[in-house]
Amino acid sequence: MGAAERDALEGIERLRQRPAKFRDARITMAHGAGGKATRTLVEGLLAPLLGIAELSDAASVGELALTTDSYVVRPLRFPGGSIGELAVNGTVNDLAMAGARPLALTLSLILEEGLASSELQAEIEAAARAARAAGVAIVGGDTKVVERGSCDSMYLTTTGLGRRDPRAHLSPNSLQPGDRILVSGTIGDHGTAVMLARGQFELLADVESDTRPLWAAVDALLDVPNLGLRCLRDATRGGVATVLNELAAASGVAIVVRETNVPVRPAVAAACEILGLDAMYMANEGTFIAVVAPDSYAEALAALRPLPGCENAAEIGEVKADPRGMVVVETGFGGRRVMDMLVGDPLPRIC
Amino acid sequence: MGAAERDALEGIERLRQRPAKFRDARITMAHGAGGKATRTLVEGLLAPLLGIAELSDAASVGELALTTDSYVVRPLRFPGGSIGELAVNGTVNDLAMAGARPLALTLSLILEEGLASSELQAEIEAAARAARAAGVAIVGGDTKVVERGSCDSMYLTTTGLGRRDPRAHLSPNSLQPGDRILVSGTIGDHGTAVMLARGQFELLADVESDTRPLWAAVDALLDVPNLGLRCLRDATRGGVATVLNELAAASGVAIVVRETNVPVRPAVAAACEILGLDAMYMANEGTFIAVVAPDSYAEALAALRPLPGCENAAEIGEVKADPRGMVVVETGFGGRRVMDMLVGDPLPRIC
Repeated sequence: MGAAERDALEGIERLRQRPAKFRDARITMAHGAGGKATRTLVEGLLAPLLGIAELSDAASVGELALTTDSYVVRPLRFPGGSIGELAVNGTVNDLAMAGARPLALTLSLILEEGLASSELQAEIEAAARAARAAGVAIVGGDTKVVERGSCDSMYLTTTGLGRRDPRAHLSPNSLQPGDRILVSGTIGDHGTAVMLARGQFELLADVESDTRPLWAAVDALLDVPNLGLRCLRDATRGGVATVLNELAAASGVAIVVRETNVPVRPAVAAACEILGLDAMYMANEGTFIAVVAPDSYAEALAALRPLPGCENAAEIGEVKADPRGMVVVETGFGGRRVMDMLVGDPLPRIC
Repeated sequence: MGAAERDALEGIERLRQRPAKFRDARITMAHGAGGKATRTLVEGLLAPLLGIAELSDAASVGELALTTDSYVVRPLRFPGGSIGELAVNGTVNDLAMAGARPLALTLSLILEEGLASSELQAEIEAAARAARAAGVAIVGGDTKVVERGSCDSMYLTTTGLGRRDPRAHLSPNSLQPGDRILVSGTIGDHGTAVMLARGQFELLADVESDTRPLWAAVDALLDVPNLGLRCLRDATRGGVATVLNELAAASGVAIVVRETNVPVRPAVAAACEILGLDAMYMANEGTFIAVVAPDSYAEALAALRPLPGCENAAEIGEVKADPRGMVVVETGFGGRRVMDMLVGDPLPRIC
């Protein structure tokens, strides 16, 4: 990189490092998309008002971890999963990414008047199955009903309580030059599956959501001695691109991604190509980014690949010192481009 | 009570003790009202599918307590409170009623596209203030946005983590004949305030919601030596009538309520009278039922009355052996009537 290019990138970076200010007069779909607008809303309004200093997948309460998520995905069912399953796996995974073993979940329902009881039953059964598969109990809940037209069938909110594993010393601030970036499996499956399930694009492809619980994979990584595991992040809303930007910004480092190393299913790549989307920004619900010390990525991949959903785990890039806070993609043709966080909301209500 | 009356009541009771079966094809507003239909949905469908054996305000995870509630009240603001404050107090109170000191809260938002940011800010500020007043931190959260028309401004879900106080030995199954029924303050304030705030009835009255955190009151009760405190329940959806029915059923006892002892503000009584409602079924958000051993109710009242919101704490009735599972009201005119659980949903979206 030349001096002029570096100066330009660092100028951009100084602007990006300023504290986010929330100035929007109204809430837009982008505020829920997990990208820049969400970050501005959370960092510029919600976290300061609530006195939340550190933003992470799960909050610490002593040795416990606590995390909550609402699920508004539509359609309720899509190839490979449904809202009930997603609501359990998503929250279990937020705990896992914080290095916390799931202990218990709660499930709160907002139901639309007139909802078929069979639809409710199907999703409660899906949630119960997912909880059993994840080895965690749903211990309590709540039910509210709103008038027809005041909710879209059902919204679910799950909260997870976990216990931080003493083997885990994870922080988004801990990335160091030389560290390797791993991805646990193919990317973009969930976002593509949900998009296609909406049937808006008259596109048929055999793509299933990757929704699955991730604690077993995290447990396997934590069992590798001296792995030098810096940080884990599941690449949900905003996709891999947004996660990598958050980590680069938090650690004040650069991340270089080798595009040809990133595992993408051919059907996902084709659907994204046709629709002008980028799999790097598509949501995942069972695929995560792990950052590990330089020497140990082969061991980490060896620990992951025997596990269901991690067969395609790959090393996709490296941490560099400069340009600070930026994510740069090296394309298969030898080119380089900056990959920013998600802007706008190309695919609303993906989870 | 004559033998014939007792036989009739016990026949009704045998029917009521059967396990609830959920047979409704569709969800109705009544399923969210906190009364019989909610009980049937929870006991007949949700709890069995999720494998939840014991239903209570907060679930036990070792010495921890975990509870969750979604809030869909409308209007968002009403005399004496607003949805942000309610979402914090309601969840803090579910912990308090389980004898658990609140440790941490999470807050998950479902926002409608187009919501004014100032409205969001006002409710986040209200939640933050309520959390400070309750001495608990909001440690994490989530934000989802749904399209205009898919949500009514905003829905909030709070989850509370608490630690069970070793002084508390509370169970809805522990009521014994002779125990006294206490109420911590005037009843029906919240339901009446919200109802009047909707302006549907062109009725003006100076009634404010009783929304407030209750841990301080519980702490005061737990500090009374040898109180014989059996159980605590905040009388939210379904009101005092529903709570007493649940306790009578759980303990297999009767509860007799002396109507003239029940504290009701004149404005609440008047509004209920005009609209044909019964304050016993109106929701409260800072008023609870405590059941205590026969000898100690005066001490319990003395501990409560110095506290804000508990000035009108009163002994309102007594536990009897028969008729099992029933709540009987003795009126001021010497009459007796059975007071059943809430049926239907006279006041939707009260919390």
